[in-house]
Amino acid sequence: MSGNSFGKLFTVTSFGESHGAALGCIIDGCPPGLELSEADLQGDLDRRKPGTSRHTTQRREADEVRILSGVFEGKTTGTPIGLMIENTDQRSKDYSKIAEQFRPAHADYTYMHKYGVRDYRGGGRSSARETAMRVAAGAVAKKYLEQRLGIRVRGYLSQLGPIKAEVLDWDQVDQNPFFCPDPGKVPEMEAYMDALRKEGDSIGARINVVAEGVPPGLGEPIFDRLDADLAHALMSINAVKGVEIGAGFDCIEQKGTEHRDEMTPEGFLSNHAGGVLGGISSGQPIVASIALKPTSSLRLPGRGIDVHGNPVEVITTGRHDPCVGIRATPIAEAMMAIVLMDHYLRQRGQNGDVDVATPVLGQR
Amino acid sequence: MSGNSFGKLFTVTSFGESHGAALGCIIDGCPPGLELSEADLQGDLDRRKPGTSRHTTQRREADEVRILSGVFEGKTTGTPIGLMIENTDQRSKDYSKIAEQFRPAHADYTYMHKYGVRDYRGGGRSSARETAMRVAAGAVAKKYLEQRLGIRVRGYLSQLGPIKAEVLDWDQVDQNPFFCPDPGKVPEMEAYMDALRKEGDSIGARINVVAEGVPPGLGEPIFDRLDADLAHALMSINAVKGVEIGAGFDCIEQKGTEHRDEMTPEGFLSNHAGGVLGGISSGQPIVASIALKPTSSLRLPGRGIDVHGNPVEVITTGRHDPCVGIRATPIAEAMMAIVLMDHYLRQRGQNGDVDVATPVLGQR
Amino acid sequence: MSGNSFGKLFTVTSFGESHGAALGCIIDGCPPGLELSEADLQGDLDRRKPGTSRHTTQRREADEVRILSGVFEGKTTGTPIGLMIENTDQRSKDYSKIAEQFRPAHADYTYMHKYGVRDYRGGGRSSARETAMRVAAGAVAKKYLEQRLGIRVRGYLSQLGPIKAEVLDWDQVDQNPFFCPDPGKVPEMEAYMDALRKEGDSIGARINVVAEGVPPGLGEPIFDRLDADLAHALMSINAVKGVEIGAGFDCIEQKGTEHRDEMTPEGFLSNHAGGVLGGISSGQPIVASIALKPTSSLRLPGRGIDVHGNPVEVITTGRHDPCVGIRATPIAEAMMAIVLMDHYLRQRGQNGDVDVATPVLGQR
Amino acid sequence: MSGNSFGKLFTVTSFGESHGAALGCIIDGCPPGLELSEADLQGDLDRRKPGTSRHTTQRREADEVRILSGVFEGKTTGTPIGLMIENTDQRSKDYSKIAEQFRPAHADYTYMHKYGVRDYRGGGRSSARETAMRVAAGAVAKKYLEQRLGIRVRGYLSQLGPIKAEVLDWDQVDQNPFFCPDPGKVPEMEAYMDALRKEGDSIGARINVVAEGVPPGLGEPIFDRLDADLAHALMSINAVKGVEIGAGFDCIEQKGTEHRDEMTPEGFLSNHAGGVLGGISSGQPIVASIALKPTSSLRLPGRGIDVHGNPVEVITTGRHDPCVGIRATPIAEAMMAIVLMDHYLRQRGQNGDVDVATPVLGQR
Repeated sequence: MSGNSFGKLFTVTSFGESHGAALGCIIDGCPPGLELSEADLQGDLDRRKPGTSRHTTQRREADEVRILSGVFEGKTTGTPIGLMIENTDQRSKDYSKIAEQFRPAHADYTYMHKYGVRDYRGGGRSSARETAMRVAAGAVAKKYLEQRLGIRVRGYLSQLGPIKAEVLDWDQVDQNPFFCPDPGKVPEMEAYMDALRKEGDSIGARINVVAEGVPPGLGEPIFDRLDADLAHALMSINAVKGVEIGAGFDCIEQKGTEHRDEMTPEGFLSNHAGGVLGGISSGQPIVASIALKPTSSLRLPGRGIDVHGNPVEVITTGRHDPCVGIRATPIAEAMMAIVLMDHYLRQRGQNGDVDVATPVLGQR
Repeated sequence: MSGNSFGKLFTVTSFGESHGAALGCIIDGCPPGLELSEADLQGDLDRRKPGTSRHTTQRREADEVRILSGVFEGKTTGTPIGLMIENTDQRSKDYSKIAEQFRPAHADYTYMHKYGVRDYRGGGRSSARETAMRVAAGAVAKKYLEQRLGIRVRGYLSQLGPIKAEVLDWDQVDQNPFFCPDPGKVPEMEAYMDALRKEGDSIGARINVVAEGVPPGLGEPIFDRLDADLAHALMSINAVKGVEIGAGFDCIEQKGTEHRDEMTPEGFLSNHAGGVLGGISSGQPIVASIALKPTSSLRLPGRGIDVHGNPVEVITTGRHDPCVGIRATPIAEAMMAIVLMDHYLRQRGQNGDVDVATPVLGQR
Repeated sequence: MSGNSFGKLFTVTSFGESHGAALGCIIDGCPPGLELSEADLQGDLDRRKPGTSRHTTQRREADEVRILSGVFEGKTTGTPIGLMIENTDQRSKDYSKIAEQFRPAHADYTYMHKYGVRDYRGGGRSSARETAMRVAAGAVAKKYLEQRLGIRVRGYLSQLGPIKAEVLDWDQVDQNPFFCPDPGKVPEMEAYMDALRKEGDSIGARINVVAEGVPPGLGEPIFDRLDADLAHALMSINAVKGVEIGAGFDCIEQKGTEHRDEMTPEGFLSNHAGGVLGGISSGQPIVASIALKPTSSLRLPGRGIDVHGNPVEVITTGRHDPCVGIRATPIAEAMMAIVLMDHYLRQRGQNGDVDVATPVLGQR
Repeated sequence: MSGNSFGKLFTVTSFGESHGAALGCIIDGCPPGLELSEADLQGDLDRRKPGTSRHTTQRREADEVRILSGVFEGKTTGTPIGLMIENTDQRSKDYSKIAEQFRPAHADYTYMHKYGVRDYRGGGRSSARETAMRVAAGAVAKKYLEQRLGIRVRGYLSQLGPIKAEVLDWDQVDQNPFFCPDPGKVPEMEAYMDALRKEGDSIGARINVVAEGVPPGLGEPIFDRLDADLAHALMSINAVKGVEIGAGFDCIEQKGTEHRDEMTPEGFLSNHAGGVLGGISSGQPIVASIALKPTSSLRLPGRGIDVHGNPVEVITTGRHDPCVGIRATPIAEAMMAIVLMDHYLRQRGQNGDVDVATPVLGQR
C-alpha cells in the first residue's frame, strides 16, 4: 500500500536506495516454465546503464543483477523471482551540506514532509537508480510476451528538446547513444548535447513506446483500462510529466469523422486510438508517448531553502544526466511490458485466454 | 482484479450497465463522522447530467441517487456506503442491428474479444453512464477534503476543439453550459457547437483540474506517485487519451533552469511541477490537464464490420453528446478528489498524519 | 482495505446494515457465459433464511434478491454483478435503551471504540443479516464450480452442543431443520432445542464443509495457502471461533506414520490432510470444520456497561436464534465455494489451467 | 496475487527456496523513525534456528540476516526494508531420486500439479526454511508494537503430543528447548522426544500465542475481522491444521450464559472471546492456539508414487525435526505481530488512531 509494488497478477515489488547496500525486487506471479538466466536481464540493464556515452552521467554503476530464487534448472518455477544488484560504488562522501538543504525541484522537500526523515545520500529512494529494477523485471515480461504471445515492445526517443525524430528504422535505435530511430538526426542531437553540457543546463525529451502483436481483449473496462494502467505505469517513471495514448492531445482538435478508426474486413484504416478501445486492446499496435522534464540537478545556481526555512543557493556538483530522457527508453519499454504481462494473466484468469475465434482485424 | 474498484484505502467499486436495472457503487473505507446525505451527492450528479442545455445529449437521465447504507443519523459510520441510481428510462427498443455490428472506434469489438458476449444495449458497461457513480463517490471525497483539510478540487473546460479558454473567473465555471471559466469565449463556443451539430460531427476537448490547499506529503514515492495515481484515475475516464501534470508536454522543450521551481522562504516561485515533486505533494496546487477525444457515435456513416467479419456501414441515430468533453469536468474533479482522499488516508496510515512541523512553503 | 471485500480474482464486496434500507454486494471477476438468474441464488438464501422452523429466530426476512447488473440475456457478461435485498421489515422501534448500553459479548463496545459512532439498530453491520450476501455470492461460485469443473461443495451440522452427528446420508441434510445428515439424531436435537428455548439460554455448534471433485493444483504455496484462505473465509463468519482442516486438532497427538496420507497408484490411502498439501489441493476432498459460539443475545440477564462506563443489567428481548450454528451451514458452504472459485481463477491466471497431465490420484 | 505477500498496509513479500542462493523479503509500509538494526531481528531468528538442541534437526543454518535498505542512520525511513539471508550450506548432493518421486504428505505432488515443474532440492519453496523471513519481518512488527503501543506478543508450546503444559511462568519459555512455560514438564518432554527419535517417528504439537496491551478498535468488521486475519496468518504456517481464538472448539458445548464475557466497570469478567468481539479487538488479551501436524519426513518407509504413477517406497534420510511444532513458537508470534501491526495502520488510516476516549475496560 506504500506503492512499492506494481501489477496485480504479475507483481513487481522493489526496494533499495541509491547509496544503500543493494537494490532488489521480487517478481511474483511469473508463469512457470520460462527459460530465464541473468543474461536475459543484463541486456536491457546495460541499455539503461549510465556512462556508456559522453551524453549521460559518467557515474559508474556495475548493475550486475543476480537471480536469487524462482529459477531452477534454467526455468522459472512459478515461485517468486528474487533479483538483486549490489551497490559497489558507495564512496564515503561528505553529505553534510545536502543533508541540510532542500534543492529546487527535487524530492528532498516532499520526502521530509512525508516521513520526517530522509536518506539524502544520492537522492536515496528518489534516485533514478531505482529504475534499474523496473528494467530487470520488465525484461522478464518482455521475454515471456515475445516467446509465448509474439508480442514485441520497443521504444525510442522521439524528441530531444527542440529536435524531433520519426521512426525511419527500428534497427537504428540501439546504434546510437540517444535511442534515436532516425540516424540523420543523431549529429544534430550530439551537437545540441555538447552545447548544453558546456552551458551547464539540462533539457526535456519525449519517448514513444510501441507494442506490436498484442491480441485483442487485454485490459479491464472501467478503472483498470489498459490505457489507464499504462498511464499509471509510465507516469510513475521519474521525471515523466505527461502521457499520451494514440492521438493523445491532438484529439482535442480532431473531429469524430477524422478520429474514429474505421474498420474493414482487411483491418483498421488508422490507429488514432493507439490500440485501445473502451480500455481494451483492439489488436492494433499499442502506442504511448511520454514527456520527461529536464533534470534539476545543475551546476548553475538555483534558489532553495534549508531545513530551518532559510534561503540557500544550491549548486549541484555531482555527475548527472543533462537529459534524463535519453536513458528512459528501456525503462518505458519495461513498464509497458509489465502492464501487458499483467493484463494477459488477468485476462486468462477471468476469461480463460485471449480470444481467437471472433474475427481479428489487421492480423489476417 | 477486474478493475471495477479504485482506491486502496478509500475504495470505490461500481456496477451497472447503461440500460440495466440500476447503477451503483460501494464506497469502502470512508472515515466515520462525516455528515452526509443524498443532497451532498446530487449537486455534482446534476452538473454531470445530460440534457441540461442544447449542447449535450437530450437523453433524460433522472440520476437520483439513494444512500443504502453506511450513514446513520446523518453521519457516516465507517461501514461501506452503498449508493444506487435506478435506471428509469429503459425503453424497450430494437437492438437487433447493433447486436450484430461493431461500430468504428467503439468498445463493441473489444468487449466481444474479451468476453465472448456483450450487453449491447446503449453501450452496456462501456457507456459513459457509468461515470455517474464516479461523480457520486467523488462528491463524498470532496466533502471530506474540504471540511477536514480545507482542500478544494475544481475543474474547467480549457479547450473546446480549436477554442481555448483561460481561468479568468472561477465563479463563471458553473454559469454556462461548457464549464468555461472565461465568459468571453462562451458565445464562440455556442456558435461552434451549433455548427457542429448541424454538420453531424463531433469534437474533442481539454479539461483542467486543480486542487488547492493540499498539504505536502501525499503520494507514495515509487509506483503509486501522486501523479501516477492521478494519471491512472484520469485516463480511466471514457474518451480520455492524454494526461499532463503541471507543465506536461511543454517540459520537453524546457531547460532545467526554466523548469525547476525555485524555492524561497516566501514560497515557490513557479509551479511547473504541478504540485508534485518525486511523486509527493509539495503544498502547491495540484494541476492536471486531460485530452478527450471526439465521440464516435455519429449520424455521418462510417465503415465497420459485423460479427461475421463482413463490412457494414454504421450510422448512429441515438442521442449522443457532440462533445463528450463538455460534461467531463465534474467527472475529472471526482477522480482527482478520490485520489487525494485515498492518499490522505494512506499517509495517515503509515506516517500518522500530514506533517506540519517542517516549514511549509507558500502557505505561510 | 476496510475489509468488506473478499477474494482476489473472484471478488465479493458487500454493504448493508441489519435495519438499513438494503443489503447488497458486487461480485467482480465472474467469468462470462454462465447462465444465471435470481432463482439460482434464492435456493441457498432460503436455506439460510430465519423463521423456517421453531428452532431459529421467528424474525421474518423476505430475502428476495435482485440481480441489478452483469447478466444479459440470461448469462453473465464478465462485468460486475450487482445484487440487492431490500429490507422490508424495518419497523420503527424504540432503540433508546440499546443505544446507550454495551451488551456483553457483542460488537457494540468494539464498534464504538473503532469508529466513535455506531448504527445500533439490530446490531447494524455486525448483525448476521450481513451473511445473506455471502450466501448469494456463494451460490454464483457454487454454480460455476459445479457446471464447469464438477466441484460440489456441501456442508452439514456435525455437532449441536453435546449431540454429535456423522454423515450417514447427504440427502438427509436438507430434510430437517438442523442440516443434520444423521436422521436418527434429529429427535434428540429437537428435544434439546426445545428445552434450551424454555430455559432462555443458547448453545454452540460445529459445522463441517466438504468439497468434492476439486482438481489438484489450487492454492498458493506461502501466505495464501488454500487452507489459510479457507481459515480466513470461515473465521470471518459471525460467531466462528475455530477452524480445522482435515485432522485438525487431532493431529497434535498423531504420529507421522499415522498422519501421513500414503499414496498408491490407486489413490491416497487416507485423508488426514483434508485435501491440502503444502497449501495446494491434492485432488482429495477438501474437508473443513468450524466451531460456532452460542449467541449472547439472551433474555437471561447479563452484566454490561453503558456508554458512560456505568454498570447495567442487559436483557435482550428481541427474536434471536438460540443456536446460530444451525443456520450457518449454507454460509460456510458459500465461503468455501468463493475461496475455491477465486483460487481456480488464480491458478488459471498464472498457470494456464488446472493440470490433468500428471497422474491424478483418487480420480482414476 | 500468487500469495507471497501478507498484510495490506504493513506488507511482507518474501522469496527464496530452501537450497537456492538466498532467502529474502521486503517489508513495505513500515512507519519511519523506528530504531532498527540487524540485532533486532537476529534474536528471534536464533530462537527459530535449527540445531540448538538435540530435539530439533541438526541441520546448520547460519540465518544471518542483512538489512539492505529502508534504514538510514539507524532508523527506518518509511521506504521498503529489504532483508536477505544467504544460504551458505548448499552442499551439492544427489537429488536424482527425490526428483522422480512424490513423498507421502509432502507438497511434491501438489507443486507438480500446480506448476508442472518444481525445485525439489530440500523441498524448495515448500520448506519450512521459508519461515525465517516471517520471523525477521515479525521482529520489526514486534519492536514497533512494543515501543509505540506497549503491545507484547508472546507464544509458548502448550502441548507436545500427549504432554500438556500450562503457563506457569512466562520467563521459563526461553529457558528450555521446547518453549515450554512449565519447567516441570520439560524432563517428560525430553524423554518423549528421545524415544521418538529412536523410533524414527514424529509427533504433532500445539502452540498458543497471546498479545497483551492491544487497544480496543483493531480489526475490520466483515471479511477482515481481526480473528479472520489471524486465522489466515496462522494457518499459513507450514504444518498448521487448526486455529482457535479464545475458547475455540470448546464453545461448541458452551451455553451462552457461560460463554458471554460479562463486563463491569472494573473490566471483563472472563475472556472466552479471546480478545475479539465482532472481529474487533476489545482491549482484552488476544489469545490464539494452533495445531501443528507431525512431519512426514521419516526414515520409516512410507508408500508414495513416482512421476510416472508407479508405486515407490519412500524413506527420508535427511535431517528433519521430529516435532516441527517445537520451533514454531517464534513463527506464530511473528505472524500475530504482523497482523496486529497491519491492523493498527489500517485503523489509523481510516479512523485516525486508536480511541482512548470511550471507557476502556480492564485497562483502568
